[in-house]
Amino acid sequence: MVVVTLSSLLSTCDAYKYKTYFYQQKVDHFSFANQDNFIQRYLISDEHWDRRGGPIFFYAGNEGDITLFAENTGFVWDIAPEFNALVVFGEHRYYGVSLPYGNKSFSEPKYSGYLTSEQALADYVDILTYLKSAIRGAQKSPVITFGGSYGGMLAAWFRIKYPHVVQGAIAASAPILQFTDLTPCDKFGQVVTADFASASSECAEVIRKSWAAINSVTSSVEGKAWLSNAWKLCQPMRTEEDVKTLKDYLTNVWTNLAMADYPYPANFLAPLPANPVKVVCSQLTASGHPPKTLLEELFAGLTVYFNFTGQAKCLNPDQQADVRLDDKGWDFQACTEMVMPFCYDGKQDLFEPAPWDLQQYAKECNRKFGVQPRPFMAQYMYGGKLINAASNIVFSNGLLDPWSTGGVMWNVSSSVVSVIIPEGAHHLDLRGADPADPPSVLKARRLEKAFITSWIRSYWEEQQQQQE
Amino acid sequence: MVVVTLSSLLSTCDAYKYKTYFYQQKVDHFSFANQDNFIQRYLISDEHWDRRGGPIFFYAGNEGDITLFAENTGFVWDIAPEFNALVVFGEHRYYGVSLPYGNKSFSEPKYSGYLTSEQALADYVDILTYLKSAIRGAQKSPVITFGGSYGGMLAAWFRIKYPHVVQGAIAASAPILQFTDLTPCDKFGQVVTADFASASSECAEVIRKSWAAINSVTSSVEGKAWLSNAWKLCQPMRTEEDVKTLKDYLTNVWTNLAMADYPYPANFLAPLPANPVKVVCSQLTASGHPPKTLLEELFAGLTVYFNFTGQAKCLNPDQQADVRLDDKGWDFQACTEMVMPFCYDGKQDLFEPAPWDLQQYAKECNRKFGVQPRPFMAQYMYGGKLINAASNIVFSNGLLDPWSTGGVMWNVSSSVVSVIIPEGAHHLDLRGADPADPPSVLKARRLEKAFITSWIRSYWEEQQQQQE
Repeated sequence: MVVVTLSSLLSTCDAYKYKTYFYQQKVDHFSFANQDNFIQRYLISDEHWDRRGGPIFFYAGNEGDITLFAENTGFVWDIAPEFNALVVFGEHRYYGVSLPYGNKSFSEPKYSGYLTSEQALADYVDILTYLKSAIRGAQKSPVITFGGSYGGMLAAWFRIKYPHVVQGAIAASAPILQFTDLTPCDKFGQVVTADFASASSECAEVIRKSWAAINSVTSSVEGKAWLSNAWKLCQPMRTEEDVKTLKDYLTNVWTNLAMADYPYPANFLAPLPANPVKVVCSQLTASGHPPKTLLEELFAGLTVYFNFTGQAKCLNPDQQADVRLDDKGWDFQACTEMVMPFCYDGKQDLFEPAPWDLQQYAKECNRKFGVQPRPFMAQYMYGGKLINAASNIVFSNGLLDPWSTGGVMWNVSSSVVSVIIPEGAHHLDLRGADPADPPSVLKARRLEKAFITSWIRSYWEEQQQQQE
Repeated sequence: MVVVTLSSLLSTCDAYKYKTYFYQQKVDHFSFANQDNFIQRYLISDEHWDRRGGPIFFYAGNEGDITLFAENTGFVWDIAPEFNALVVFGEHRYYGVSLPYGNKSFSEPKYSGYLTSEQALADYVDILTYLKSAIRGAQKSPVITFGGSYGGMLAAWFRIKYPHVVQGAIAASAPILQFTDLTPCDKFGQVVTADFASASSECAEVIRKSWAAINSVTSSVEGKAWLSNAWKLCQPMRTEEDVKTLKDYLTNVWTNLAMADYPYPANFLAPLPANPVKVVCSQLTASGHPPKTLLEELFAGLTVYFNFTGQAKCLNPDQQADVRLDDKGWDFQACTEMVMPFCYDGKQDLFEPAPWDLQQYAKECNRKFGVQPRPFMAQYMYGGKLINAASNIVFSNGLLDPWSTGGVMWNVSSSVVSVIIPEGAHHLDLRGADPADPPSVLKARRLEKAFITSWIRSYWEEQQQQQE
C-alpha cells in the first residue's frame, strides 16, 4: 500500500526560485507578411550563476505553462550549482501566458497559424541572443539546451538547426521519429500494454475487455446513466459523442500512467503515487467479471489517476491531465506539423482497435482549425532519421515510456548518442534526484553531465583557438 | 585591342539543353496562417544522368530568371558528364516566372513578405524531395548543391540547414558575412577601386573625380541638358532625383565591371569584352581634364559597359544590368533580410562619399515596401562566422571580386574550406571552361571536383554501413 502526502511535492516546487521576465517577440521569424509582435514569458534563476563565463542552461519550453516544466525539471536545478549555470526556462509560444493574439489566438488560422516548432525555436534564438547581450558576463557563455518530450524534440532540433546558438542538447524522451513512415503506428500502444502486463497478468486484460464492456453498457440510456453514476462523472453521459469522449479520456489515462510510471510520487500529468501502474493494477485483478462488475473494478483503478489527492468531487473526461498542459495548443500542433500516427488493434495492445486514417484525421483537423496537416513537415525540416551531420546531442529514453518507440535509440555518431534507461518512464532523467531513483537513471544523469562538461570544454577550447 | 563577336556566347547558351518543369509550391513553409500555393519553375537535364544512383547537381537559384543562371554556370554543365549527374536548376521564388502572387507579388507585404531566403531554401527541400520520389533511380541519389553570389549563400546555407537533403555545397563568391557587425562597410568599395587602380594609375582617379564633375556640371539646367546629350541618355535629366539616379547607376556600373572582370568576353551582368576593367580603363587616361572633358572621356569608358554590342540607342540609367536580374526582388530582399552595409569615403575608394545610415535606410525601406529591415536576421538564422558545426562546404572567392570582402576566406574546418582564386572575378569558377582561364581557376575547379567526389563517396559509404 502506498501512502503519500502532497506536501513533499509542494515543498519541492517552492525550492525552485526564479524571476519572471517578458520579451517582445516577433510573431513571424521567416517572412515579412506579418510584422506583429507579442509578449513572451521566460524564467531566470541566477542563484548559482558565475558571471565570469558560466554556462547558460536553457530549457526549451514545450506544450504548457512554463512554470509546470520549471517545477518538473529538477535535473537542471540539481546540476546548476556545480556548473555555476544561469538557468533559463523559455515559454513556448501559444502556451501559458505567451499568447500572440490573446483570446483570439486559436480562433482562426491567421492567428493560430504561427504555432509551429520552427517559430518556437526562432523565438528561443532571439531570447538567448538578447540575454547574452543584456546580461553582464554572458556574452560568450556556452548554452546547453534541455527538454523533455516535445521539449526534448525542440532541444535536439535546436542544436541541429542552430549549432551557433546552443553548444549541446539533452533531449530526454524526444520522439523525433514518431512521424509518418518513420515509426510503425502500433508500437506506441504496445509499450503501454507491456507496462501494464508486467505489473500483473490480469491488469492489461481487464483494460482490454473494458472497451467492449463500456460499449455494451452504454448502448442503452439506462446504461449511460448507470455508468455516469458509477464513475461519478461530472456531467452524465447522454450521447454517443459523450461515450467517445469518455473512451478517449481512458485511452489517455492508460497512456499517461505508463508515461508517468515513476518510482516515487510525482505531480506531472496528474498527482500520482509511486509506481502508479502497479498501484492501478493492484485494483484490476479479475478480467472474468461481467461488464458492470468489470467497470466498477476499473473505476477503482481509474480513481488512482483522477483522484489520488482525494480532492476531486467528480470525474471530468474533458480534463485529461494537468490544466497547465494546454490541450488546445497541442491539438492544433498535432493537426498541423506534429502529425503522429497512432493505431491500435486490441490484440497486441490493450486499447480499443482503431486504425490510423490520415484522410479522416485531416478532415477533422480542417473542420476544427481550418488547417491542412503537413505530415512530412518535421521530417523535411529536421531530417527524420538522417541526423548524422549533427553533433552534441544526447537522446535519452526510458523503456517504460511508450514514447521511446519514436525515439533515437542508437548511437548516431560519437557525439549524437543514445542513453537508454531500462527502468525509466517519460524523461525520468530530467526530474530531480530522488532516493527511489533506479541505478540506471543515476548512470544516465552521470553520462549527461559528462557530455555537458565535454561540450563546454570543447567550446572554450575553440574560443581559445580563435583568439590565438 | 579586344575583338569579339557575340555569336560564341549565343552558341554557348544553346549548348545547355534542359527541360522546363513546374512544381506546386507552398507560399509559407513555416506557418499555417497562409496556406496558399504557387507555381515554381525548375529546369532539368538528364542527358548525362546515370539512373543507377548518379548524383543530383542542384543549382540553388538566386535573384533572377533561372535561365540566366543556367546559361552562366557552365562548370556544372561541364562536369555533369563525368559524374553522370542529373542537373537541376531551381528558380528562386519571386523571380523569373515563379511569382507567388503574379502582378501583385510586390504590391504590399501580405504578398511580398514571403520573399526570404528561409522560404526559398524550404522550396528547394520540397522540390528535391519530390524529384527523388518521382524520378526512377533518384531515390537514394546524393545531392550536391551549387550557387554563385546570393546563390552561393543559399548553397552554403542549404547544406548548413538541411544536411539531410544536400550532401555538400559549392558556394562560389558567397558573401555570407556581408552583414552588420561582421564586415566593415568600406571594404567592398576598396576592392572595386583596387581593380581599377591596378589596370592603370589614372583610371581610378578619373572615376574618383567624376562625381564632383557631375555635381558641378549638373548644378545648372544647361549642364543637365549638356550631360544628357553628351551621354546620350534615353530621358534627359531634369531633376536632382535624375542626377542621383545617374550617379547610382554609375556606382553600379563600376561595381559590376569589377565583378564581371573575366578574362574572356561574357554576358552575365551585361555583354562585356574580355578583361572589361582594363578595356574601360584604356579610355580613362587623363584625370587632369576640366569637368566636361573628363565626363566626355568617362562616357567613352561607360560605353564599354552599356553598349558593347553597339545595339543600344541610348543610355538608360534605370537599367543597371541584365533585365533578367530582377532589381525589384533584390531591392525587397535588401530591405528585409539581406541588409548589407556599404559605405564609401572617396579617398580609399573611387566612389562618391556616402556613409552607411541604417536609420535612413530603414525609413526608405518602410516607405518603398512597408517593411522594417531585420539586419540581424540572416546572422541569427545561419550563424554568421560561427559555422564550425557545419560540414561539406567549399567557399570559393576571387580576389578581383569586391564580394570577397564578405566571403569566408579561411578554412573553417577540414570539411568547410576556403578556395581563393587570385585572378578571379565574381564566381569565375562556376563559369564554363575557357581557354583564357587563369591557372588559379583551373586549380580551384579541380579542388571543387575532388571535394564533390569525396562527399559522394562518403555518402555511399554511410549508405553501405546503414545496410550492414
